[in-house]
Amino acid sequence: MVFAIAEAFAPATVANLGVGFDILGLAVEGAGDTVLVEKRSEPGAVILSIEGDEGRIPYDADRNVASIAANAVLKQIQAEEGVGIILKKGLPIGSGLGSSAASSVAAAVAVNALFGEPLKRHELLGACLEGEAAVSGYHADNVAPALLGGITLTTGTGLSDIQRLPVPDTLRLVLVSPAVEVSTAAARRVLPADVSLKLMVHQTGAVARLVDAIYRGDVVAMARAMGDDHVIEAARAKLMPYLHEAREAAIQAGALTLVISGAGPTLCAVLNSSDAETSVAQALEDVYTQHKMACVVRKTGVAVDGARVLQTN
Amino acid sequence: MVFAIAEAFAPATVANLGVGFDILGLAVEGAGDTVLVEKRSEPGAVILSIEGDEGRIPYDADRNVASIAANAVLKQIQAEEGVGIILKKGLPIGSGLGSSAASSVAAAVAVNALFGEPLKRHELLGACLEGEAAVSGYHADNVAPALLGGITLTTGTGLSDIQRLPVPDTLRLVLVSPAVEVSTAAARRVLPADVSLKLMVHQTGAVARLVDAIYRGDVVAMARAMGDDHVIEAARAKLMPYLHEAREAAIQAGALTLVISGAGPTLCAVLNSSDAETSVAQALEDVYTQHKMACVVRKTGVAVDGARVLQTN
Repeated sequence: MVFAIAEAFAPATVANLGVGFDILGLAVEGAGDTVLVEKRSEPGAVILSIEGDEGRIPYDADRNVASIAANAVLKQIQAEEGVGIILKKGLPIGSGLGSSAASSVAAAVAVNALFGEPLKRHELLGACLEGEAAVSGYHADNVAPALLGGITLTTGTGLSDIQRLPVPDTLRLVLVSPAVEVSTAAARRVLPADVSLKLMVHQTGAVARLVDAIYRGDVVAMARAMGDDHVIEAARAKLMPYLHEAREAAIQAGALTLVISGAGPTLCAVLNSSDAETSVAQALEDVYTQHKMACVVRKTGVAVDGARVLQTN
Repeated sequence: MVFAIAEAFAPATVANLGVGFDILGLAVEGAGDTVLVEKRSEPGAVILSIEGDEGRIPYDADRNVASIAANAVLKQIQAEEGVGIILKKGLPIGSGLGSSAASSVAAAVAVNALFGEPLKRHELLGACLEGEAAVSGYHADNVAPALLGGITLTTGTGLSDIQRLPVPDTLRLVLVSPAVEVSTAAARRVLPADVSLKLMVHQTGAVARLVDAIYRGDVVAMARAMGDDHVIEAARAKLMPYLHEAREAAIQAGALTLVISGAGPTLCAVLNSSDAETSVAQALEDVYTQHKMACVVRKTGVAVDGARVLQTN
């Protein structure tokens, strides 16, 4: 079955989970990007319109992550026709929520849906990575959870390098995105080139505890391990406005911990039930309001299914 | 119930599991140390005899790990009486099989049994660590699996820092201990002071995959992750005679991988069933025989229960 239009949604993602720098990530419910594609007789992908980006995303098909991912799928399925793309940004750029990954994944899933799903979900990974690579580097730590959903362990760019982990039942998240931008490149530049062997052992231990806690469904232990990063946050904290204040406020209001989402500045508070969601959200909003900085707060959980097709017609 | 004598056994342990340097370990079936204690009216612990050590272990109660651990338990339970200790070494010293941990644990478990088990098994951890600290440093990566059994994740010296992981059903091990000694101190001296951030990310990823594979009971993935250490083995390989040759022979004979056990020189081959145990054992023995080096080969599995009381009377 081949359609005239198809629309897909891909969720925001929280990469790193604190101590799991560059290897762990999860998809979140609610926020995300949407891509609508329509069949065109000319081969290749073109961008028809972009909404919600304040004019910042390029229309050039070779530089837009959605069209790059779409073109990769078209090539993979050897399509003779092409697609026109309407990209609806639900995620802010440079906010640490996997914005480019969501656009890439939504585009790849939409194109595959348009042609009657010739490829299985996981077979879209390479195409999504091509899109992501255009702005964030060839790395799957946001793409994998956006595409597959849940919590993912990513240790390479092949399918065999990605493992889905179980999602603890009681895990809830509150995300706060202050109105500043942190480029992934800047967030990488501040990282140390080397760490001591002792710190390496500490980080491997904390990551092992994190995976163990995830399997046991123990959100308290999970949060403790996530927050036990001695390397990445120490280097990046200065780029994240009011990080320590936000953490203190979130914990005071009932969160277990708070970590930087991806390269930031979005911060992710971790909760063991939805009970304190509202008070944690309010506490985080208050921190930035007091400092006269706008912010967006999201109460959310893990999106177990990842990207989804919204319509085909 | 208080007894006149008690005897306990503690198993050999394989620390590190390759990439899990300083954090992962497991107890093995078969080999281990035995401690018999007898009640004495004088307080404190004394060493009565030591067997199987070729005269190398001190009788001085302040320097012998078994008497140090025994004294720690006597103090913990506020015993007014003391113990005489007969230590039967089943494990060679400096072989990477957790010899000092086995002596410490067997002594602590025996003393606790002698006094009718006033302490629970896990409450002996501190006493075992005191013994271990006398020769190997205050570190629980061998003590924890020797005491508790199974596969353990150790990220500190408190009880809350130790987590038991599930044991994959099909996991089998072949250990080969060549007749050379590697001191833990020497094996630590060759380690790098620092590693690159990139290597740190690699190691955290491999450790995460290892814990994930252990939970999924996937011995193939477990072995792949264990063998994916880019930091520790690279530095220590030169201290381990015929390491690369042994690995190649073990894999040729049906093993999935081979890693250094603890600080070595014992090597631990990992198998996904007992089918190839005999051929792997033979292949490893052949390597050392060809180089005119004596060795001991053990076919074994994970000892799920750890130390055990052999008799009370």
